[in-house]
Amino acid sequence: MSKSEFASVHYSKYLQLDKILNAQDLRSVEVGKPAHDEMLFIIVHQAYELWFKQLGHELESVMDMYRDLDMDEKEVFVAVNRLKRCVEIMKLLVDQVRIIETLTPLDFLDFRNYLLPASGFQSFQFRKFEVMLGLKVAKRTTYANKDYRGPFTKEQYEELTNLENSDSLLQQVEQWLERIPFLEFKEFDFLSDYKKSIDHMYEEEEKAIKSTNIDEKHKKFRLEMLKANQSYFDHVLDESKHNEAVENGKSKISYKATLGALLINLYREEPILQLPYQLLATLVEIDELLTSWRQRHVQMVMKTIGMKMGTGGSSGHSYLKKTADSHGIFSDLSNMATLMIPRSELPKLPDDLKKELGFYFTNIN
Amino acid sequence: MSKSEFASVHYSKYLQLDKILNAQDLRSVEVGKPAHDEMLFIIVHQAYELWFKQLGHELESVMDMYRDLDMDEKEVFVAVNRLKRCVEIMKLLVDQVRIIETLTPLDFLDFRNYLLPASGFQSFQFRKFEVMLGLKVAKRTTYANKDYRGPFTKEQYEELTNLENSDSLLQQVEQWLERIPFLEFKEFDFLSDYKKSIDHMYEEEEKAIKSTNIDEKHKKFRLEMLKANQSYFDHVLDESKHNEAVENGKSKISYKATLGALLINLYREEPILQLPYQLLATLVEIDELLTSWRQRHVQMVMKTIGMKMGTGGSSGHSYLKKTADSHGIFSDLSNMATLMIPRSELPKLPDDLKKELGFYFTNIN
Amino acid sequence: MSKSEFASVHYSKYLQLDKILNAQDLRSVEVGKPAHDEMLFIIVHQAYELWFKQLGHELESVMDMYRDLDMDEKEVFVAVNRLKRCVEIMKLLVDQVRIIETLTPLDFLDFRNYLLPASGFQSFQFRKFEVMLGLKVAKRTTYANKDYRGPFTKEQYEELTNLENSDSLLQQVEQWLERIPFLEFKEFDFLSDYKKSIDHMYEEEEKAIKSTNIDEKHKKFRLEMLKANQSYFDHVLDESKHNEAVENGKSKISYKATLGALLINLYREEPILQLPYQLLATLVEIDELLTSWRQRHVQMVMKTIGMKMGTGGSSGHSYLKKTADSHGIFSDLSNMATLMIPRSELPKLPDDLKKELGFYFTNIN
Amino acid sequence: MSKSEFASVHYSKYLQLDKILNAQDLRSVEVGKPAHDEMLFIIVHQAYELWFKQLGHELESVMDMYRDLDMDEKEVFVAVNRLKRCVEIMKLLVDQVRIIETLTPLDFLDFRNYLLPASGFQSFQFRKFEVMLGLKVAKRTTYANKDYRGPFTKEQYEELTNLENSDSLLQQVEQWLERIPFLEFKEFDFLSDYKKSIDHMYEEEEKAIKSTNIDEKHKKFRLEMLKANQSYFDHVLDESKHNEAVENGKSKISYKATLGALLINLYREEPILQLPYQLLATLVEIDELLTSWRQRHVQMVMKTIGMKMGTGGSSGHSYLKKTADSHGIFSDLSNMATLMIPRSELPKLPDDLKKELGFYFTNIN
Repeated sequence: MSKSEFASVHYSKYLQLDKILNAQDLRSVEVGKPAHDEMLFIIVHQAYELWFKQLGHELESVMDMYRDLDMDEKEVFVAVNRLKRCVEIMKLLVDQVRIIETLTPLDFLDFRNYLLPASGFQSFQFRKFEVMLGLKVAKRTTYANKDYRGPFTKEQYEELTNLENSDSLLQQVEQWLERIPFLEFKEFDFLSDYKKSIDHMYEEEEKAIKSTNIDEKHKKFRLEMLKANQSYFDHVLDESKHNEAVENGKSKISYKATLGALLINLYREEPILQLPYQLLATLVEIDELLTSWRQRHVQMVMKTIGMKMGTGGSSGHSYLKKTADSHGIFSDLSNMATLMIPRSELPKLPDDLKKELGFYFTNIN
Repeated sequence: MSKSEFASVHYSKYLQLDKILNAQDLRSVEVGKPAHDEMLFIIVHQAYELWFKQLGHELESVMDMYRDLDMDEKEVFVAVNRLKRCVEIMKLLVDQVRIIETLTPLDFLDFRNYLLPASGFQSFQFRKFEVMLGLKVAKRTTYANKDYRGPFTKEQYEELTNLENSDSLLQQVEQWLERIPFLEFKEFDFLSDYKKSIDHMYEEEEKAIKSTNIDEKHKKFRLEMLKANQSYFDHVLDESKHNEAVENGKSKISYKATLGALLINLYREEPILQLPYQLLATLVEIDELLTSWRQRHVQMVMKTIGMKMGTGGSSGHSYLKKTADSHGIFSDLSNMATLMIPRSELPKLPDDLKKELGFYFTNIN
Repeated sequence: MSKSEFASVHYSKYLQLDKILNAQDLRSVEVGKPAHDEMLFIIVHQAYELWFKQLGHELESVMDMYRDLDMDEKEVFVAVNRLKRCVEIMKLLVDQVRIIETLTPLDFLDFRNYLLPASGFQSFQFRKFEVMLGLKVAKRTTYANKDYRGPFTKEQYEELTNLENSDSLLQQVEQWLERIPFLEFKEFDFLSDYKKSIDHMYEEEEKAIKSTNIDEKHKKFRLEMLKANQSYFDHVLDESKHNEAVENGKSKISYKATLGALLINLYREEPILQLPYQLLATLVEIDELLTSWRQRHVQMVMKTIGMKMGTGGSSGHSYLKKTADSHGIFSDLSNMATLMIPRSELPKLPDDLKKELGFYFTNIN
Repeated sequence: MSKSEFASVHYSKYLQLDKILNAQDLRSVEVGKPAHDEMLFIIVHQAYELWFKQLGHELESVMDMYRDLDMDEKEVFVAVNRLKRCVEIMKLLVDQVRIIETLTPLDFLDFRNYLLPASGFQSFQFRKFEVMLGLKVAKRTTYANKDYRGPFTKEQYEELTNLENSDSLLQQVEQWLERIPFLEFKEFDFLSDYKKSIDHMYEEEEKAIKSTNIDEKHKKFRLEMLKANQSYFDHVLDESKHNEAVENGKSKISYKATLGALLINLYREEPILQLPYQLLATLVEIDELLTSWRQRHVQMVMKTIGMKMGTGGSSGHSYLKKTADSHGIFSDLSNMATLMIPRSELPKLPDDLKKELGFYFTNIN
């Protein structure tokens, strides 16, 4: 039976402050050599863990929406709001690095030895968050060929393994993008129209450059640049090239999902695509902030322990650097920038398709 | 016997994550009506409490330095660094308001009723922090004439009462400022020289304004402004006026301490005053951030519950507004800005005093 | 005839850096007493003016959309994006105060006298921005009964007067809200259903409190609080009370617009209301940031010149304080928080209305 | 003859707003295809240029102090304050990237073609700032083997070349560190004492690890880690190894300067070393923020133009990525973290040396 809704609640009981505020036992005090700054070290990591829990809570709820239902329009709105909350939290996590940086290497040495081999690599929640978003073992930069699941309990190891084998948010979004229904609509064939636009755009630009009154060297440079930029479109125009990119790990989502994402990005202003566009943009922002956090983490480690090995036994600085460079998750979505074309070249949507993309209310008037 | 320094430590044990991550029991779940956003509400408050603990840890260590020893030069350096860490933490606390603001009023209503009468006024740590800094009961804005110590346990009530009766950081700093030794030094009498400078400065400005080729109305306006600004110096030139200000609550520190703070602000570039200046400036920054936090708190409450009463039964918004306006602690130090004079008017220090304010190494060469 | 699209452009010419970087003539240098920090003073104000220009550019474009067309769904999306850009810019403006605060009072005094009577009150762009948003002369806190348009040229004076007499963004939004079509729809009468919900909600809460096993004092307190909160709903349930509030300046928008805003806030998840909700929420955020900027401005002035009069002749600190407290523009929109009710009490929309609020595509399936 | 100090000054004249606010001519308007977002593009770059000017102003003043005088104690204080101002400005520059990111690729394409080949690589002020700090041509990542001075005028080319050939701030700091006088003082030989401490520290740790009751695998791991970390000290203990590092570009400052920096970092709490320590720490912070800015720049470019070439013809994204990874300037100073030892192992300073490092005032008492 559930408790009464109207029972009295006290702030400190409600927040379980007896647990929260009694969870700081300094190792330096335990070994009899109290170090003032160890408190900061503990608190800052605990604050990170609290926020990781919240990030997990939001992420799970979004993944549940994708799982249980077919993600209707109301839910896309709710999902966007929850992912934007993740963005705000992650901005805080990046800023929070400034606080650890007030811990100077000299002060850190007062207790660092007592912490071995505890290490940030042992944050189960953070690993879970990465896996849920879509980072796969195969893509993971490892140190010394160690399994990242090594430091965890049997239950945690299994939970991570199960998560790796279930759909990540990236995969859920991929499937959702594959279901976007407007790629072909009666006489409208998105891909062929898009291709025509690109061809036309390049022809016009080429013509203009050639006829312009600039020096030959500059002209040649512009024509080369034009050609180089054109090649980026090949991947999306040619399914086999895309599949190649998937195989060698440069792309993570299917060809059809890529086209769906492209359509949303190009026609974002049509009512039915506005929230889907915000969702994709928010995922890119989360990815970007994750990278920023890794980069600031590298700087902080460099500042605190220098080139030494991390407490967990990795090469510290250089290991973290590699993860910052290579652990992007939604890169297919940020790559959309490469595939944009000027609005003036955008294939015009037929009227009956525009109606389908609009609101019912407006349309009947 | 203390534990071995080299025992193995595991991340999640070290951080006591079993406590930290199992301290979120949603009331809405308890009463059988789960509300997704209640998790955020709990986590954000727990994160605040963790940081309050850290702020208390830093503040206590600085107050201990003032208490046990006579705050030598090395300690001023350490104190400045720890107070600057408080500044970084408080910046985060202000930014963290953005995260609660992602909780919209509609979402808050899903669980708000289950929290009554829990309230942020019941944060013991925050009250302690305020009292330790120097906020006195007599100065406190109250709501409904309630004692702010009401919601706490007997032990907590007594701890707050004891803290109110001991020296706050403000009082410690006041006593330290009173001990600044250079106000009179052989032929140098700081106050009389400072007065001469002010008089000279005003005479010159008056002369210049009168002889300038501007219209009479504008001239009159400038002369009035000159006079108005001059009146601010009276308080520091006339001890009885200062004591009046102390009595009516406009000043919080003694006349002598005020002169000490003034000397430090004016001659901050002399080596022995550099760190003391940084200390005073950092206290002003802490006060400013406390005000910013209160102001953002007002905005957040306004945004989340509007004009309704707070869960604790206060008038919410308007009560918080008053505390933001009136709970400044180190206002005597920020007022120093009013008492500055241009460097060109600064009384010149005699050579033997300058030597005293410098480093031993430089001086003997 | 327009220039060629393909002419070569050089960075420094394009940005007109010859103007931008040659617009810093230090008065202190002119009068022969160079003050290092005057450069900062100039640059920081110029950076503010650049951003004010950008804010004006965005605001004008949004107001044009409201003026020329009937603000269709695509445009609401574009307007939201541009207003969100304003939010990002205003966050920067608030943060930028930190930079001026590195100018200490002692350093400011090195050149402050040479600036008289120049003053931040003379920023034409900022005044324009305030008026365009919706701040009216009648609401303006003044100092010494001076017209805020006094310092400007004849052309600027007239431009401000014309702006005051045209529709502000607040008024445009008001009219747009009045046109929201769903307040009455066949058998659905929003206001009467909302009233029923409120009555039901209070009856249930009252019953629950009375039957709960808590002490009488606490019970009485809760019942009083319940009643107090209920009174806030009277304004929206009784048109004459709202009109009273408009007359005494507590409300700024019409009764009908208020109901429109309420509907959007309560049913924000319906597709056709998602972007309108984001628009209202973004306006509240802009208002909040404007207040934060004013509050930080107060702190900065306090820190830089203390209690002295501003260079423009106002009482500086206390004048600015008043504007921070009273110059809110979209307060009717932030007050919506007061009028929210739990989702469980929300009047259910009839199916045919829900269809009208949804997408055409979804509905026909 | 200098102008009167008391002439009237008007805000808009003082700030030369006629220049500042009339320097935005949109190319898209010129070619007859107005693009709303081009204004943002111009303003944001102009704001950057204003701040670059301010950074240059601060940097020049610090470099002048190093050049003209021997940087006495008062000046170190002033230099620290000015460099900290640079830190605040650079934080803003990093945050400002958020604003450009509101320019989506689709919107950028509306005017991007009209800007060719203008490019951020053509910011003369930014190049100057880099060179003044200490980035040398030889270290510069180039694209297509182009000289970074290519896009500039003859005068600018020469100014950059001259700056490359004069002392950068890095070199000035190096020379200042070489002059730190306390490396040898009567019986005190810093380096030999430091070496003894390191040896002792490792012996103790080795002994402790060996005698601890942990499994052999873990024990072995700890001993290996101990050895690996020890190797970092070799560079500072062996001058020839350091000189090797200088030759292969891993170190940028001399052996003697490195020892000076080490002494300051280890004994930062001694009064005479407090400000020098703050100076070194602030330089590290500037370097870190420069890297953060480059990294955010990469993300922004990726988000705005994707993988396409930059308007200046570089490979855009990947070129910028390389500079972010390799253009650190004060890496020798951040490397100090590697060379710290626990306070308990710190060689004790002889009393007469401590006296030399203290204030005159305290010492005579």
